[in-house]
Amino acid sequence: MNKKLLDTIKILSQIESSKDVCHEQGNNYAMPSTDVLQEIVGLARSILFPGYFGDSGVNSQTMIYHIGVNINRLHLLLAQQIKSGICFNCPNEKINDVEIDRIGNEKATDFITQLPEIREKLHTDVIAAYNGDPAAKSLGEVIFCYPSIRTISNYRIAHALLKLDIPLIPRIITEMAHSETGIDIHPGATIGSYFTIDHGTGVVIGETAVIGNNVKMYQGVTLGAKSFPLDEHGNPIKGNDRHPHIGNDVIIYANSTILGNIKIGDGAVIGGNLWVDTDVPAGAKLAQKR
Amino acid sequence: MNKKLLDTIKILSQIESSKDVCHEQGNNYAMPSTDVLQEIVGLARSILFPGYFGDSGVNSQTMIYHIGVNINRLHLLLAQQIKSGICFNCPNEKINDVEIDRIGNEKATDFITQLPEIREKLHTDVIAAYNGDPAAKSLGEVIFCYPSIRTISNYRIAHALLKLDIPLIPRIITEMAHSETGIDIHPGATIGSYFTIDHGTGVVIGETAVIGNNVKMYQGVTLGAKSFPLDEHGNPIKGNDRHPHIGNDVIIYANSTILGNIKIGDGAVIGGNLWVDTDVPAGAKLAQKR
Amino acid sequence: MNKKLLDTIKILSQIESSKDVCHEQGNNYAMPSTDVLQEIVGLARSILFPGYFGDSGVNSQTMIYHIGVNINRLHLLLAQQIKSGICFNCPNEKINDVEIDRIGNEKATDFITQLPEIREKLHTDVIAAYNGDPAAKSLGEVIFCYPSIRTISNYRIAHALLKLDIPLIPRIITEMAHSETGIDIHPGATIGSYFTIDHGTGVVIGETAVIGNNVKMYQGVTLGAKSFPLDEHGNPIKGNDRHPHIGNDVIIYANSTILGNIKIGDGAVIGGNLWVDTDVPAGAKLAQKR
Amino acid sequence: MNKKLLDTIKILSQIESSKDVCHEQGNNYAMPSTDVLQEIVGLARSILFPGYFGDSGVNSQTMIYHIGVNINRLHLLLAQQIKSGICFNCPNEKINDVEIDRIGNEKATDFITQLPEIREKLHTDVIAAYNGDPAAKSLGEVIFCYPSIRTISNYRIAHALLKLDIPLIPRIITEMAHSETGIDIHPGATIGSYFTIDHGTGVVIGETAVIGNNVKMYQGVTLGAKSFPLDEHGNPIKGNDRHPHIGNDVIIYANSTILGNIKIGDGAVIGGNLWVDTDVPAGAKLAQKR
Amino acid sequence: MNKKLLDTIKILSQIESSKDVCHEQGNNYAMPSTDVLQEIVGLARSILFPGYFGDSGVNSQTMIYHIGVNINRLHLLLAQQIKSGICFNCPNEKINDVEIDRIGNEKATDFITQLPEIREKLHTDVIAAYNGDPAAKSLGEVIFCYPSIRTISNYRIAHALLKLDIPLIPRIITEMAHSETGIDIHPGATIGSYFTIDHGTGVVIGETAVIGNNVKMYQGVTLGAKSFPLDEHGNPIKGNDRHPHIGNDVIIYANSTILGNIKIGDGAVIGGNLWVDTDVPAGAKLAQKR
Amino acid sequence: MNKKLLDTIKILSQIESSKDVCHEQGNNYAMPSTDVLQEIVGLARSILFPGYFGDSGVNSQTMIYHIGVNINRLHLLLAQQIKSGICFNCPNEKINDVEIDRIGNEKATDFITQLPEIREKLHTDVIAAYNGDPAAKSLGEVIFCYPSIRTISNYRIAHALLKLDIPLIPRIITEMAHSETGIDIHPGATIGSYFTIDHGTGVVIGETAVIGNNVKMYQGVTLGAKSFPLDEHGNPIKGNDRHPHIGNDVIIYANSTILGNIKIGDGAVIGGNLWVDTDVPAGAKLAQKR
Repeated sequence: MNKKLLDTIKILSQIESSKDVCHEQGNNYAMPSTDVLQEIVGLARSILFPGYFGDSGVNSQTMIYHIGVNINRLHLLLAQQIKSGICFNCPNEKINDVEIDRIGNEKATDFITQLPEIREKLHTDVIAAYNGDPAAKSLGEVIFCYPSIRTISNYRIAHALLKLDIPLIPRIITEMAHSETGIDIHPGATIGSYFTIDHGTGVVIGETAVIGNNVKMYQGVTLGAKSFPLDEHGNPIKGNDRHPHIGNDVIIYANSTILGNIKIGDGAVIGGNLWVDTDVPAGAKLAQKR
Repeated sequence: MNKKLLDTIKILSQIESSKDVCHEQGNNYAMPSTDVLQEIVGLARSILFPGYFGDSGVNSQTMIYHIGVNINRLHLLLAQQIKSGICFNCPNEKINDVEIDRIGNEKATDFITQLPEIREKLHTDVIAAYNGDPAAKSLGEVIFCYPSIRTISNYRIAHALLKLDIPLIPRIITEMAHSETGIDIHPGATIGSYFTIDHGTGVVIGETAVIGNNVKMYQGVTLGAKSFPLDEHGNPIKGNDRHPHIGNDVIIYANSTILGNIKIGDGAVIGGNLWVDTDVPAGAKLAQKR
Repeated sequence: MNKKLLDTIKILSQIESSKDVCHEQGNNYAMPSTDVLQEIVGLARSILFPGYFGDSGVNSQTMIYHIGVNINRLHLLLAQQIKSGICFNCPNEKINDVEIDRIGNEKATDFITQLPEIREKLHTDVIAAYNGDPAAKSLGEVIFCYPSIRTISNYRIAHALLKLDIPLIPRIITEMAHSETGIDIHPGATIGSYFTIDHGTGVVIGETAVIGNNVKMYQGVTLGAKSFPLDEHGNPIKGNDRHPHIGNDVIIYANSTILGNIKIGDGAVIGGNLWVDTDVPAGAKLAQKR
Repeated sequence: MNKKLLDTIKILSQIESSKDVCHEQGNNYAMPSTDVLQEIVGLARSILFPGYFGDSGVNSQTMIYHIGVNINRLHLLLAQQIKSGICFNCPNEKINDVEIDRIGNEKATDFITQLPEIREKLHTDVIAAYNGDPAAKSLGEVIFCYPSIRTISNYRIAHALLKLDIPLIPRIITEMAHSETGIDIHPGATIGSYFTIDHGTGVVIGETAVIGNNVKMYQGVTLGAKSFPLDEHGNPIKGNDRHPHIGNDVIIYANSTILGNIKIGDGAVIGGNLWVDTDVPAGAKLAQKR
Repeated sequence: MNKKLLDTIKILSQIESSKDVCHEQGNNYAMPSTDVLQEIVGLARSILFPGYFGDSGVNSQTMIYHIGVNINRLHLLLAQQIKSGICFNCPNEKINDVEIDRIGNEKATDFITQLPEIREKLHTDVIAAYNGDPAAKSLGEVIFCYPSIRTISNYRIAHALLKLDIPLIPRIITEMAHSETGIDIHPGATIGSYFTIDHGTGVVIGETAVIGNNVKMYQGVTLGAKSFPLDEHGNPIKGNDRHPHIGNDVIIYANSTILGNIKIGDGAVIGGNLWVDTDVPAGAKLAQKR
Repeated sequence: MNKKLLDTIKILSQIESSKDVCHEQGNNYAMPSTDVLQEIVGLARSILFPGYFGDSGVNSQTMIYHIGVNINRLHLLLAQQIKSGICFNCPNEKINDVEIDRIGNEKATDFITQLPEIREKLHTDVIAAYNGDPAAKSLGEVIFCYPSIRTISNYRIAHALLKLDIPLIPRIITEMAHSETGIDIHPGATIGSYFTIDHGTGVVIGETAVIGNNVKMYQGVTLGAKSFPLDEHGNPIKGNDRHPHIGNDVIIYANSTILGNIKIGDGAVIGGNLWVDTDVPAGAKLAQKR
């Protein structure tokens, strides 16, 4: 270690240098950990789809033991990460240790009790993918191989956590799926049953998007914001409704871009490579002009 | 563990709840394991490109030892996963343990004996990428850094396994590359020598696509199905020929979408951002109208 | 191990078979190792954004110790990988062990002393992402969840290494980010402050691209080469300036393709799904015709 | 790798060189693995003493899940190691794959069904250690800290496996405890309930030793063979009864050596540092003369 | 999983079966974990003897960073284990979460502030071992290779924890050293400076033993209890003073057994293989009669 | 991290505090690493006894590949540790980097070329253990289970390294075996063929001991120094010949202590629990008087 390195250590450790890039977490809790959240997602997947994720030797007789152990650990880790998430945004003085502990444990329990319902919804997504793709040989192949299933799993997990008012954690979880599959679904989006995305790389579904039941989309589809109102400082106003609402039974083909707080009616079919920023009536069929 | 968690464990372990999402594997074999398949792909890559993948200290003198050890382990793991793949689709009563063992070992051997040929093909792909990209400084850089090489490696491995009638496993292996690179090639596709994809994110190559020799494509290109005939239940008929056939010496620029069982003739050049669903004659040059 | 396997080991270990696919590294140094480079990127990220990457328990009091330990290890590993990179391209006889050692240690030190400056630049990128996205709730969320931050971190690291004339290593590092996020930035590109990419999957930024300050782009944008001059063998001439130069304060919407050594003037706005291969004047607003 | 190393590899790989030191295992099964047996012992301990060994977070509510998962894995690994043990001693031609599989699974099941009984016996050993040592603060401290409990656990496990006619494996398991604690009990020994060894380093209990109930011994005690008859080649005849038989309620103090097939009567007390090679009547108290 | 296994899982999970062998930990804290305690001992050793234990690349310039990171982690883990230790012995209703947290953190801090003093004492032990053994080539060899240093380190750590009234944990820590070295020192013993044990296997030092400064002993030495008073149930009375008190400058040769609450005067020399259960005057030299 | 902890970090990092306990290694090489030496011993064992140690799936066909890979790695790690060992004792100014590198590689090669001879010697030790113990069922059981084989392996490895004038490393390697088996053999001792130790816990064999061929000993035997001459400072003079010389065909029973630079003649039998400090003539049979 020469002097240059020792000096660099000092510079990089100065508070001023690290302001904004090193968060001062409330109450001395650790920050959320992407490693632990990765394990949490792995546990949740192995509970939802036993054998497909986690221990590949699980069968119907031993499933209860594996699910028991995994839920036990999931609760422990999730309660801890929820606490870290809550403390990320709170000023130190406002935090009460005992209260935070109670909330962490309670919300982790609340989430876990929703897993049967989440599994039911995901079951519909698996069926939709199987029915919609001539290349799919079995439901099992869909669960094993379809990136949409892994992404929608993360989305449905993250969405449930967001509904429990847990900050930051849900967004990290959907971004993990984005990294894994190239499909970027914001946890705030609302998505119905029997949802399927084929191939999926490049798909973007924004925070305030709403998607009905039995919707299918292909790779490269964007449900984005068209523009957003700025505040007096010229910065976007956070949180207003700015993404498309998609009805039931809609198909959107590859690489189409649907922008703004518009409505795509039930049963509409949007062709590929289209740019859509106005309402589309129910049953309409849009195709690229050539 | 409060009562809510204990109840949730019970609900999630009920057979009815887990039907479809927990596969009952034939003959008490474990299910295919994505972790083991990940190791299998790693072993195969380290055999095909010694030093680039696996132990970075390999050199020409020690290569035989490393390849020996890696093939030994590859055979062990692959035989086991082939058995798991076969048992995934078979009803219990039809499986004979001794026979499955024999098949697993035999097919794993068959696959491994094809590795020299697979390496030769991949060698042509490396040369094509190097020759086709002004940014490529050496063949070594191509092997280390080009996502197309990793994807095409997985594809050529998976395609060989599919030709050996091994179910499920090949599809998991190409999806691993899809997750890693954003390039989604179905193991059923047929692809010639000197194949190269630049950047590659978002590329989709469907199950029944056929690609000649010396074809080059860019990111975002889709070789997809346009539509597919439905059976009497309204579900797609599985397996029919529904993807493009691409001739030799074809170039397809970024984000173009080629759909349906059409023919792109030898030497054709397809410009970027195009939507093509009819045959293109040999030597044609298509460009986006503006 | 049957005879077929033993024969295959022999075939795959023959020098002729493995020429090109097994590099003979100069001076018996190990080849660059993607595993070690992965650790290097992890260390650099944990130094740049303490607590967000690496140990999640870091706080302002303990930061100096963690940064000290991480810089110590980063220097050790990076010096070694720089040596491996240098020896990758050198013929054996030209390499002097002592000299290589000195160079490796010196360049690793040089790189590390640039980390404070790299952190400052990344800080501007974090602010730009936060300001530009109504969905972003805090700077912390941007660092944790935005793929553009991870990609631009790798890019800025790799660019600094490239400027130190280190071969191969920078390209491997940006490709790691490409694999992780779907955003493919060549380390040779030149990128100003306050740079942000939203969602980002499918973005490609080529080797000789130049990007000003305060530029924002969306998923699927390509800054590519249009065509490139061939040498007498019909192969592309390496290294000439062939990518777009983007001014300050430019916005490029999703899936637009900007090709060739053209100029996009300050303040220009390029709409989505566009194909641009000619200069765009400052302040111009391009939109897809429909 | 210089020539000397390459030559050494060849020499060390010649069959003649490696005869005796490299076992040719029957039927291509792998040899027994000390790593796997280590995991087996860890699983068995965590089933017998939940929370003390294995996951420290187990409680009465979650115990059934942890025991279920651990027994599942224990059965898998043990069946495999039993097969490896059986094939270690069998000539190749005598082995029938299907039969070996059946035996391995059956014996692993048989062993596991004995775990409740083994736990009961170990419970008596824990009580004996607690009652016999003024330094022991609780039963829990005994389980956590007393080397005798870990050794006797391994012994009782190994003894049960030996009774199931499983070769080699039991001996490896008791040697693991010997390495861990310095207490060397042969799996062939017969040991009653409420057995305790204090401190224990250097204790040796031979293959044909028999120990009654409620026996206590201290560190350095040997129950060994005095001499053993030789066969016509001058080698010891294997397997005859050559070790002491210890009655009930006997105490043997530190570093005493009890040799040969003698009887130590009920309630005898053997002082420390003694050399005993003749029968000791019930109730006798032996002490070192000074 | 056949029925026998499923039944065994049930039997082993019944509370009655597991009473005593599965501890019901107070307040839902996890039990103490030997794995975590192992890490704690490793951290403490790497702080006390930087470079010898832990990261071998530490030098005088980087030491402060490594010690900072290690103390940070040591505090975290130790506070947690102290809490687990306290809850091991407490009935549930008596435990107050907030109070336990405070105590755990405080005692962990108290312990860490004693590390400089512990290091000073260990330094004297290292010097004593070096001076006392003609085979010792350097102080460094003593720290690296002498089992007595590792054992006495654990003892001095455990003794400090015991003085802080932490239950259970200290005893587990000295037993770890016993397993590693064959030297069994109870954390309750009192041991002066410049203490050394050569070879050491089989040494036992009891709970109430007292050892002066500059004492040296060899392998197989026992400082044990001779007999202990029984209570009305015939069980030993816990905790009374029953072990030898050794003066300053005493040497005890191999395999001697010193028993009971006796005094060995300053400067005494006890020969090997002796049995001593009465006071030995200062300066006396005892030898085995032959 | 409160102030007390931060202060403690500072105190523990002061050079004065850490003098002697933190070695300043010459030339910025890392110190020897017990973790790496553990791996080195594991590699050497797996080369000497393929299948018993290391990968349990090795057989006669695949052995050459495993040995090749293991020798490759052994050479790399050993050369590095030899360098660390040499730099441990050298003042900084005396070290020449290039020269140290050459020496490290050369001595590592020298050692590896001795492995065939070391294996031959160990083979005789295995045979001796098998022939000498009625409980031994096969040569394989001896290799798998007898602590003497693991200890003598480490001794023969360490002795060869010591003969190559490598400091420190040999002593660490025999201490690893001491920790594992309770048998403490100094690497400086000279030991003939067909050497065996039964059970072995507590055995000590000193630095200048010499042992002939076909010698057998039991647990607790010491070959130690009786006394050693002091220098003018009252410290022992290092390195003089002070341990017993044992002839051929000698048996020494359990717990006997042989002290000083005496001679035990060929064929002598030393009974158990004896204290011997004078020469024993050839063929003599010593027994404890009672």
